[in-house]
Amino acid sequence: MGKFYTIKWLESGQVSMIDQRKLPHEEVYNQYDDPAAVAGAIKDMVTRGAPAIGVAAAYGLALVPWHDKSGDVKVVVQEIQDAARVLAEARPTAVNLFWAIDRMMRLVDGKSYSSVQELRDLVLGEAHTIAEEDVKTNLTICKNGLSLIPQGAKIFHHCNTGSLGGMDYGTALGIIRLAHEEGKEVFAFLDETRPRLQGARLSAWELLQYGVPFKVVADSTSGHYMRTDKIDLCVVGTDRVAANGDVANKIGTYNLAVVAHENRVPFYVAVPKSTIDMAAPSGDVIEIEERPAHEVTHVGSWQITPDNTPVGNPAFDITPAKYITAFITEDGIVYPPYEENLAKLFG
Amino acid sequence: MGKFYTIKWLESGQVSMIDQRKLPHEEVYNQYDDPAAVAGAIKDMVTRGAPAIGVAAAYGLALVPWHDKSGDVKVVVQEIQDAARVLAEARPTAVNLFWAIDRMMRLVDGKSYSSVQELRDLVLGEAHTIAEEDVKTNLTICKNGLSLIPQGAKIFHHCNTGSLGGMDYGTALGIIRLAHEEGKEVFAFLDETRPRLQGARLSAWELLQYGVPFKVVADSTSGHYMRTDKIDLCVVGTDRVAANGDVANKIGTYNLAVVAHENRVPFYVAVPKSTIDMAAPSGDVIEIEERPAHEVTHVGSWQITPDNTPVGNPAFDITPAKYITAFITEDGIVYPPYEENLAKLFG
Repeated sequence: MGKFYTIKWLESGQVSMIDQRKLPHEEVYNQYDDPAAVAGAIKDMVTRGAPAIGVAAAYGLALVPWHDKSGDVKVVVQEIQDAARVLAEARPTAVNLFWAIDRMMRLVDGKSYSSVQELRDLVLGEAHTIAEEDVKTNLTICKNGLSLIPQGAKIFHHCNTGSLGGMDYGTALGIIRLAHEEGKEVFAFLDETRPRLQGARLSAWELLQYGVPFKVVADSTSGHYMRTDKIDLCVVGTDRVAANGDVANKIGTYNLAVVAHENRVPFYVAVPKSTIDMAAPSGDVIEIEERPAHEVTHVGSWQITPDNTPVGNPAFDITPAKYITAFITEDGIVYPPYEENLAKLFG
Repeated sequence: MGKFYTIKWLESGQVSMIDQRKLPHEEVYNQYDDPAAVAGAIKDMVTRGAPAIGVAAAYGLALVPWHDKSGDVKVVVQEIQDAARVLAEARPTAVNLFWAIDRMMRLVDGKSYSSVQELRDLVLGEAHTIAEEDVKTNLTICKNGLSLIPQGAKIFHHCNTGSLGGMDYGTALGIIRLAHEEGKEVFAFLDETRPRLQGARLSAWELLQYGVPFKVVADSTSGHYMRTDKIDLCVVGTDRVAANGDVANKIGTYNLAVVAHENRVPFYVAVPKSTIDMAAPSGDVIEIEERPAHEVTHVGSWQITPDNTPVGNPAFDITPAKYITAFITEDGIVYPPYEENLAKLFG
């Protein structure tokens, strides 16, 4: 990237994250030196996007031994376990949070360490590995996705799935970016993604930097553009894919997939394998986070509803597998039947 | 209503309108004394909603003879014709604007008047008649709609179609209001209706006053609520219905209708006959207004996109007739086949 970073470990023993709540108006980096603060940042959406919050949680755990003053391995292990619980409660839907924590805890639990230093190096090393793997995985997903992008494609995209939502290229937005860099002359329709406006604020901010042509449109315009302007495909990310191919993703994904289906527009989901939850048999078991009312009643400092207006604010929805044309993974494109073909990825 | 009014003729020879751009924060009434200013108010959405802008245009024309200083019938007729052209250019999609202007011009064109006073009384009288008929028509629509509302119904509603969009009860929101008043214990899901937020700002403001239980939700949540919370029906208004039953309405109507269809949720369109354009064979011939970029880039004074972000802002979309369960008109409920059954309404 060069220009900005999403999450970085600082040698001073801090996790630094760009404050995505303040984009596109201010490019501010916040530093965190304890895991509870990292959990708070995930909950408040300082950082968001399934791969990104996995990386943030991993670094959050690495903070514990780094800042230990006890020198006692047992104490540190206990503190890491406590931190894991706090981090796991930050947000309920995106599986990468749990995936990253589980992976970190496999190093911590049930092993013996001769020193806090040894534990600290291993834990931080694993967090770095998760971040580095994410970069590689995402770039591989983007390369695999290229084959699905026709020359001159008009592509509808939801939420933010670029560098801000993952590492480096990210996923779905990274495919659009890479297609642009490869000279495919793509054009992106970025829906604004109410209520948090990740499309209007974050994806627009990224694509302006990459020079990819696009326009921002209201979420509800997707079907209109499919009917009147030839949209070639939709590509989105996901917070969790169930074993049967049901997709949990940012609220509005289901509506987009249904109108795409109705208009015979291919609907692709870019997904690292770490976001596929084979333990979830279907989308029905995935918890949908209800977020605070002020996200709907206010935009920035501007109140849009009358005082005392009740709101509903589900942060995600479930898109049944039948609406998904294919998954774009680091191991290739996965077509239906998903129950069988997703299992093969892990077989 | 008592509490507020949408459009009113003042005996001082002015058209007074509540400034809907400032709701729900301020209840401000603007006065207009020439038709170009009324056209500007329609264009800028001081008033909006198909029936309301028809009434506004009629009163706008009535201003011309009222303020005449020439005393010359020929001059006044020419000025009314000029004003009609200016008003007709205010917005392109809602047919009531043209319907009301045509109706007014039938009084003016090709007739002879002995005095400006006579012309003035007739023209103002016709504008009052249009406004009064709108009140009666809307209430009849609401009563006709009641039969479609089950006890305890959860109803999804788009944009604003209440008193602010028509006269008195309005149309779709009036059905919800009347059902509440009749003890049907309904609950309304009001989508916020980006980019102008007519649902979040205006429909919420109305329902709080009527005591109808509701919540405001992002536009993109409609399918999620249909899947997870039993929504019994959708009811919306319309800016123009074509002879084949295609519906032009606020952007997002098409997406809502498609997800309703996919979830087998009945989708009703409340429509006065004045909004049915038998001269339009299908939705394909209806012009879709593209509105200014700042409606997407800004919410109130808050900029949401980065500087220099290109946007698309279609104000309406076309919902093909096949997604409409029925039309609720002042002459009763109209079911498919629409080409045949809408024609019957006009004898």
